Amino acid sequence: MRKNTLKNKLLAGKTVYCGWLHIANTWTAEIMGNSGWDGLSIDMQHGLHSIETAIQMMQAISSTETIPIFRSNWNEPGHIMRLLDGGAYGVICPMINNKAECEKFVGATKYPPLGYRSLGPTRIIDYAGEDYAANANDELLTLAMIETLEAVENIEGILSVASLDGIFIGSGDLMLSLEAAGKGMLFSQCINRIIASCETHGKIPGIWCNSHDMAKEMRSKGFRFIAVLSDSMLLRAHTQQLVRTLRNNS
Amino acid sequence: MRKNTLKNKLLAGKTVYCGWLHIANTWTAEIMGNSGWDGLSIDMQHGLHSIETAIQMMQAISSTETIPIFRSNWNEPGHIMRLLDGGAYGVICPMINNKAECEKFVGATKYPPLGYRSLGPTRIIDYAGEDYAANANDELLTLAMIETLEAVENIEGILSVASLDGIFIGSGDLMLSLEAAGKGMLFSQCINRIIASCETHGKIPGIWCNSHDMAKEMRSKGFRFIAVLSDSMLLRAHTQQLVRTLRNNS
Amino acid sequence: MRKNTLKNKLLAGKTVYCGWLHIANTWTAEIMGNSGWDGLSIDMQHGLHSIETAIQMMQAISSTETIPIFRSNWNEPGHIMRLLDGGAYGVICPMINNKAECEKFVGATKYPPLGYRSLGPTRIIDYAGEDYAANANDELLTLAMIETLEAVENIEGILSVASLDGIFIGSGDLMLSLEAAGKGMLFSQCINRIIASCETHGKIPGIWCNSHDMAKEMRSKGFRFIAVLSDSMLLRAHTQQLVRTLRNNS
Amino acid sequence: MRKNTLKNKLLAGKTVYCGWLHIANTWTAEIMGNSGWDGLSIDMQHGLHSIETAIQMMQAISSTETIPIFRSNWNEPGHIMRLLDGGAYGVICPMINNKAECEKFVGATKYPPLGYRSLGPTRIIDYAGEDYAANANDELLTLAMIETLEAVENIEGILSVASLDGIFIGSGDLMLSLEAAGKGMLFSQCINRIIASCETHGKIPGIWCNSHDMAKEMRSKGFRFIAVLSDSMLLRAHTQQLVRTLRNNS
Amino acid sequence: MRKNTLKNKLLAGKTVYCGWLHIANTWTAEIMGNSGWDGLSIDMQHGLHSIETAIQMMQAISSTETIPIFRSNWNEPGHIMRLLDGGAYGVICPMINNKAECEKFVGATKYPPLGYRSLGPTRIIDYAGEDYAANANDELLTLAMIETLEAVENIEGILSVASLDGIFIGSGDLMLSLEAAGKGMLFSQCINRIIASCETHGKIPGIWCNSHDMAKEMRSKGFRFIAVLSDSMLLRAHTQQLVRTLRNNS
Amino acid sequence: MRKNTLKNKLLAGKTVYCGWLHIANTWTAEIMGNSGWDGLSIDMQHGLHSIETAIQMMQAISSTETIPIFRSNWNEPGHIMRLLDGGAYGVICPMINNKAECEKFVGATKYPPLGYRSLGPTRIIDYAGEDYAANANDELLTLAMIETLEAVENIEGILSVASLDGIFIGSGDLMLSLEAAGKGMLFSQCINRIIASCETHGKIPGIWCNSHDMAKEMRSKGFRFIAVLSDSMLLRAHTQQLVRTLRNNS
Repeated sequence: MRKNTLKNKLLAGKTVYCGWLHIANTWTAEIMGNSGWDGLSIDMQHGLHSIETAIQMMQAISSTETIPIFRSNWNEPGHIMRLLDGGAYGVICPMINNKAECEKFVGATKYPPLGYRSLGPTRIIDYAGEDYAANANDELLTLAMIETLEAVENIEGILSVASLDGIFIGSGDLMLSLEAAGKGMLFSQCINRIIASCETHGKIPGIWCNSHDMAKEMRSKGFRFIAVLSDSMLLRAHTQQLVRTLRNNS
Repeated sequence: MRKNTLKNKLLAGKTVYCGWLHIANTWTAEIMGNSGWDGLSIDMQHGLHSIETAIQMMQAISSTETIPIFRSNWNEPGHIMRLLDGGAYGVICPMINNKAECEKFVGATKYPPLGYRSLGPTRIIDYAGEDYAANANDELLTLAMIETLEAVENIEGILSVASLDGIFIGSGDLMLSLEAAGKGMLFSQCINRIIASCETHGKIPGIWCNSHDMAKEMRSKGFRFIAVLSDSMLLRAHTQQLVRTLRNNS
Repeated sequence: MRKNTLKNKLLAGKTVYCGWLHIANTWTAEIMGNSGWDGLSIDMQHGLHSIETAIQMMQAISSTETIPIFRSNWNEPGHIMRLLDGGAYGVICPMINNKAECEKFVGATKYPPLGYRSLGPTRIIDYAGEDYAANANDELLTLAMIETLEAVENIEGILSVASLDGIFIGSGDLMLSLEAAGKGMLFSQCINRIIASCETHGKIPGIWCNSHDMAKEMRSKGFRFIAVLSDSMLLRAHTQQLVRTLRNNS
Repeated sequence: MRKNTLKNKLLAGKTVYCGWLHIANTWTAEIMGNSGWDGLSIDMQHGLHSIETAIQMMQAISSTETIPIFRSNWNEPGHIMRLLDGGAYGVICPMINNKAECEKFVGATKYPPLGYRSLGPTRIIDYAGEDYAANANDELLTLAMIETLEAVENIEGILSVASLDGIFIGSGDLMLSLEAAGKGMLFSQCINRIIASCETHGKIPGIWCNSHDMAKEMRSKGFRFIAVLSDSMLLRAHTQQLVRTLRNNS
Repeated sequence: MRKNTLKNKLLAGKTVYCGWLHIANTWTAEIMGNSGWDGLSIDMQHGLHSIETAIQMMQAISSTETIPIFRSNWNEPGHIMRLLDGGAYGVICPMINNKAECEKFVGATKYPPLGYRSLGPTRIIDYAGEDYAANANDELLTLAMIETLEAVENIEGILSVASLDGIFIGSGDLMLSLEAAGKGMLFSQCINRIIASCETHGKIPGIWCNSHDMAKEMRSKGFRFIAVLSDSMLLRAHTQQLVRTLRNNS
Repeated sequence: MRKNTLKNKLLAGKTVYCGWLHIANTWTAEIMGNSGWDGLSIDMQHGLHSIETAIQMMQAISSTETIPIFRSNWNEPGHIMRLLDGGAYGVICPMINNKAECEKFVGATKYPPLGYRSLGPTRIIDYAGEDYAANANDELLTLAMIETLEAVENIEGILSVASLDGIFIGSGDLMLSLEAAGKGMLFSQCINRIIASCETHGKIPGIWCNSHDMAKEMRSKGFRFIAVLSDSMLLRAHTQQLVRTLRNNS
């Protein structure tokens, strides 16, 4: 089976950078794949892709060294399993608030006896190889999203799920959740608590960053799976900047 | 943020007419959008669209004055949130049978503290503007479908959900549900009861009509959100009529 | 090989009605196919379809009794041949202004020795049967468009092309061409001349009509291949009419 | 309503062969539809199709004698209902482990009073006819997948669901489930028990086979709904075989 | 008819900036449309779009103030006419090397008596309005590409075509053509000659620029239609830059 | 620039086997790409692909060792250039009947001074590398189709075009052309003549074969670029065979 270099770098203690895909297009995926990211996450939660296009994007990414993963739309087993069969080497699952939800999520990504994933590798064997089914339980990367106050409070239970590889903080949602609870000032404390728990449990801490400055800061705090901005955000910011420059030049 | 004219007309006590989209196509959506409807609902429950095409149709509708909304496939948070991020200004959720289901539905459409919607506006900011996240909780329209006898019996609980804007009667399904319970004759009573409850709770009553005669009648009963037929029904009826006319002419 | 009922009706002296497809969608094509038309023409000249969608639409029409044909984008052999391989049982070619252009067009639709069509039936054998290649030269319908003053003046040469089955008047373009030449009043004379020439040469006269009244009139003049309006025109007219009725009712 | 020949053959005691579709393409579906299968199942669990493409594939299959059905992504009512509205004449639902899950599944496929399916036939009336809604409860085929040890243990409860037509063994998953429980040697016993229970309850036994030899063996055991390999497996095996032959020839 | 603000700015003596679209996607088109460009050109020569996607992109652009135009694949009348019917307000035609080619090009964009465009506005009336056909000859923008030494030598003939609005220099191709002829040093002279000829004939001079510095320089030389980079170039450059920054930060 | 292994094998005197793609699908392309073919040709003449899907298929093939090429729809420069920009490493052009047509074809594939290809590499740089433009003239493979008696008679002129790499016999069309001329018995002589001329001019002889037996025979005659059957032919033959086997087994 093709090695999951994204997971292996993390297991080796390295920091990885992950690009984020909101645009439903195979060529933008390929361009991102040729840009040096360690992994690329297709965002099925906020992005614009049908499942069919998402799989075609994973085909495009397969021509590069970058590892294709996805953020699932929700904690839904059928949805998660199908994208794995379509070619993903990892999953980030949103809104994991307690241990039971985490077990449901991770179980969907593992064949028995570790979980309840259904056997039926289709396109994934073109990417991974014919021995996929025998090795998938080891190679796939699973990250649970921590994005509510409830999740932070249940972090020990969540991290106790054995087959889980790590967590991924939805920084925008967590801040919103804290503000809604009148505890917006606690964001930094939550971050620290999550990092510490990850260390205790030997799990990978990850986070989405809205700038490279934030990425730098989060790296210094100990995050090792770092996602930054997205394809559409990059395009939007730089085309607007270009037009402003052109008009100011004149 | 761009104003939700569909919701504002309803808040101002006006009646609105909503077109219905079963065909998975951006141009039929644009043609419907240029026909004078106040809103257009993309039907993800019975229509033929993938989520990707549905969002492209919302792009096409965005070039018109008509407001794009959708009927969700089911009461599924991930699905609902994604279509909102893709550009919808309202949701009609099928098969809401009690207060708990209604709270689950409405919560998926509201950011904390009103609900549990995940933050991540993508294409919607092209339609709504950069200040979308701060205003979305106010502007989005939420309608719960009442289409079973159980729902009618639980109407008070459903209407007690604060962030719900109104209800939408699936007239075909409600009739079928009543007939199955041997109470087909009660359709008109159910309608009246729902209308009265909506008045009491300050909620908008809506209904789908299979003809303009039914629309006229339902308007006279007090319905203010009135959907009539669909794109495919209009095409089917009128192409068949044209062929008949051509053959009879000869 | 499956019989071309559209062509056979014409050969038997009957009048046929042909629907027109501008919308790039398989379901609208299927709805039109189930509406009683003798044939359906996918308009690759003014419609919105890629060649891939056009072929998928022919698949959808294949489930009905209606015969799929297309209007080509232009008099381009490669384009015409590919849509024939994809499943069309006839072609209407725009802007045929003289005999040489007609020979180029018809030659693209016939295998040697009648023409220079390339052998390579792909999807068409699913529709026509395994014996397609041996019979296609007989079954396919070919109509040349007459839509300029030049074409009218060259009508005898055009109709002298042996493998051509008939002509199809682009009524809007012909009127425009005549007006541009300051001869708008001659439309009716042109029509009569073309009809007469078709009778002399044993060719089928066809025309596109913008209403069923025009269709009735043209039928009385002798046209036997009669296309009327289009899917998008029907949808546009009737959705606008419905909204007007709804608002006037109130 | 068009008859469900696949179900009728089963009700008449015959054995049927069902093709399996993993490729998201309308032409491969049509080719499979023209190959003599009694039915074709679009695999929404492991296949690569969006719901929109799946429906277009059903359109393509509609031009053949083969009956289109699908395996659902998961036991999700909205998903199942939409594919039925889009044109499927049967559903195979994965991971049915007990009676309650089976009732949820079957209920989604039946209109009241038999179930809770929402009324709104769209494209299906192009395939089935205008009288679809009145007859659908009788014509649709429903098969529950038995693919875990838990399901085998609950087989009596599952088969007691009145509107269920039969079961379908996910042979790969069931073997995996048994192996995970350390009971891999029991596969044959499980098969026999399921067959026997089906006979007792008058339900149809079905299974997926990875070769025609396995199909032959399973038929001899009494299975009557037999699915074999898939479009992608056939293409993969035979293109690899062809290349090997070419290279060995040289 | 909706006004062509891009053309009107040029007629008023202003300079316009035009974005360039290589990515076949409706959302990237919409993002570009919301970025302040005066016009956006869908590149059918080097871009990855089918005609169907290109038209959907024009729908998306229609929701913005930016004017949609396209570069045609080649000087092919059928292709050009169809994209105009689909919603474009202007055309840039590649490889115009002499007056005859220019007349063929411009004729395809104008209804008689100015040209030979076929009448059949379809989606364009959703963008332009019902009175499109009567006004299109005035509103559409036509630019002929000058990208060979031959074209430079024939510039007077090309600019003498009355209905042509201006020229557009393919700077990369012109440089390549000059180098191939051993005259690479003449690029600047060619530019000057073309600018001067445009002034003489009252035509708009346009050029594609590979940086904002080049755009600034070309503007100072007198170019008034200035295209800069493309969507894919912007995305590629800035995602690579981001990854480099992230890795250098660490 | 990535090396064109398909061309290099041919230049080294080896025989290559080329798969043929009629199905418009990225996964079937990937499966074919993982099956051991030296090259894969996307058939834009008889296949069902839009240009957009063809490019996505080249993306999928890019993840394999197999080299993507295409057969063009016709001898049309804009069409040919765009597929090269999209990722093809070779072109087979149909219906080349004389030297002038061959020069027009080959010129479209070469940048000046060898030809008139327009500069604008887009997706191809993701496959080939940033230095593509400087090396493309050397790496691309160009094959002219010989499929008429006229072409055979003009073979010397066609082979005299310097930048042409070889020819490709459309065996079905050539036979049809010979039969139409009453010279069906000459097929073998034509083959021999073409092979001999290729040797004289140092060009590669290629042919399409409808079976592996024919491939073996043609290889023994000296053909070195050997295409065999197609994806759809393989699927059709083997699914029909499987169903026959299943029914005969019973």
